Amino acid sequence: MIQLSHKAYTLLKKHPFRIASGIRTSTPAVLVRLKYEGVEGFGEASMPPLYGESIASATAFLSKIDLSAFNDPLCTEDILSYINDVVPGNPAVKAAIDIALHDLTGKLLNIPIHQYFGLSARSLPTSKTIGIDRPEIIRKKVNEASKYKYLKVKLGGDNDHAIIEAIRKETDKPLYIDVNQGWKDRNEALEKILWLKEKGAIFIEQPMSKNAFSDMEWLASKSPLPIVGDEGIQRLPDIITAKNFYHGVNIKLMKSTGLREAFIMAMTARKAGLKVLLGCMSETSCAIAAASQLGTLADWIDLDGNLGITNNPFKGHMLKNGLIIQNKLPGIGLKTPQWNKIITNE
Amino acid sequence: MIQLSHKAYTLLKKHPFRIASGIRTSTPAVLVRLKYEGVEGFGEASMPPLYGESIASATAFLSKIDLSAFNDPLCTEDILSYINDVVPGNPAVKAAIDIALHDLTGKLLNIPIHQYFGLSARSLPTSKTIGIDRPEIIRKKVNEASKYKYLKVKLGGDNDHAIIEAIRKETDKPLYIDVNQGWKDRNEALEKILWLKEKGAIFIEQPMSKNAFSDMEWLASKSPLPIVGDEGIQRLPDIITAKNFYHGVNIKLMKSTGLREAFIMAMTARKAGLKVLLGCMSETSCAIAAASQLGTLADWIDLDGNLGITNNPFKGHMLKNGLIIQNKLPGIGLKTPQWNKIITNE
Repeated sequence: MIQLSHKAYTLLKKHPFRIASGIRTSTPAVLVRLKYEGVEGFGEASMPPLYGESIASATAFLSKIDLSAFNDPLCTEDILSYINDVVPGNPAVKAAIDIALHDLTGKLLNIPIHQYFGLSARSLPTSKTIGIDRPEIIRKKVNEASKYKYLKVKLGGDNDHAIIEAIRKETDKPLYIDVNQGWKDRNEALEKILWLKEKGAIFIEQPMSKNAFSDMEWLASKSPLPIVGDEGIQRLPDIITAKNFYHGVNIKLMKSTGLREAFIMAMTARKAGLKVLLGCMSETSCAIAAASQLGTLADWIDLDGNLGITNNPFKGHMLKNGLIIQNKLPGIGLKTPQWNKIITNE
Repeated sequence: MIQLSHKAYTLLKKHPFRIASGIRTSTPAVLVRLKYEGVEGFGEASMPPLYGESIASATAFLSKIDLSAFNDPLCTEDILSYINDVVPGNPAVKAAIDIALHDLTGKLLNIPIHQYFGLSARSLPTSKTIGIDRPEIIRKKVNEASKYKYLKVKLGGDNDHAIIEAIRKETDKPLYIDVNQGWKDRNEALEKILWLKEKGAIFIEQPMSKNAFSDMEWLASKSPLPIVGDEGIQRLPDIITAKNFYHGVNIKLMKSTGLREAFIMAMTARKAGLKVLLGCMSETSCAIAAASQLGTLADWIDLDGNLGITNNPFKGHMLKNGLIIQNKLPGIGLKTPQWNKIITNE
């Protein structure tokens, strides 16, 4: 029998975090444990409010789950198909169950989950995200991120130029640019992309609204830098139409409903000639460790969500000189997690 | 160290086999073994001549393979990416290595490969294929296939009506129709589909040339029965464009380069709203057992290639009343295979 437990857990941010659409100081999350024959698997739903899920919706979802029909946790497809069909939507809480199930699977097979997906372990350079802020704060954050090889820069507010100028006073590191749908005019967007290319940008993420289909198509055909879809790319069917609007896709467990669909998305995207960015929300080391298991399928990695919170209850991979050092622990790679010591803070 | 061995092995057919494009009495194949720390994995390339591979091309391909860089057979992605990139094309011999690698993986993890893919074991009804023939032979073959719940009927020659009439004199079983690109005129094709629907057909496979794009698009929009792509669907990128021409796809290991890509293809096809037919060539129980591991992802199963050969060197799953009974043996499910007892017949 597979037993499901969960705890509400609000992630507290080290610094207020601002992107094109707003600012926040915490992120609601729900932690999940699956237990089977004494073996525990851990998962997490991180739910930034703008995506529509909450501790209340996740708790309500989990209360509907009945796993009593499943007596073999390795029947992933049956279990996750059931979870998928319980209620539409709810991708983050579905991801929590998927992650816990994979953690359990890896422990039962005694292999790390990257091996379950046929992947090897490598050192993976993650970018460090710099939120929208005043130039002097930006410069301070850039210096604090000195060990990272790539910076992910949030633009799309009213001070894009000031932010880039501030960064370039401190470093000439390559930049991942994330606009979060912030630009409204396609000509202006293209102009900014040309300018950002000169400034050492590597790609541009979600420059305009995910619904501005003709603008995005136009921009993708003109841009000298790869355009990466984020808000416009949620689950596997979005990969099939992605090529009309994007050169790459940002795959996040909290959008994809977890590792299994994220794996298929990454494999399909690569075969379709799309670049793969592996991203995250503000998350504990649980979901970040899980996502990093797919690291070798990604062209670019932005798995820094655990670095910006003050109350991380899990320990995952080591980070060394901006590199994620994948460990060989079975499951998603958490070090001696202790469910009973995690105190809900709701 | 992973050691690779191979043997040429011609599959001898019980009966000459005729489809829209020709007739044959044997199928060239190459059997493959991978050995790692005393554990063996088996694979197979079956190469009907019209697809362009041969024992010579497969042997030449295998002679180029150097696995000495890989010391962990669970690093499937690295190994198969290397195999994929050695020479373009050659899907069947690539499948042979993929199948052997998965057989090895399952044995190393001590799980059947359906479990490695997160799938459960079920009893799966396979169709039995009836080649193009004279009505009296057709009637005999239909009676010989009495235990199967579905018949797969090859059409596209000049006697489609006579074949169906002969079948319907013997049985009212549901029919899978496979035209192998045999119909040349789209209006005539639609007429035949309407007639076949009345006659109890379930789907129509590759009614016209895979290159008759506008005809196929037209036909898919008009057909009251699902149109399934076979010759038009080879590998994962074809799934992405399949919806323009087909309602379903025939996934075969010998086209997809093996289990890993076939799994991704089936998962992606399902999420794209495409039906999945799991098919085969004339094959030994090795490749058939491997394909059946993906059985629960399929809407329709046509895994009877091992039943039509007289010199099958492997034993896989049981077949009972037309049902594939999946076993729980580790790997692809072969019973005590003995490599040294397999005598090459080239």
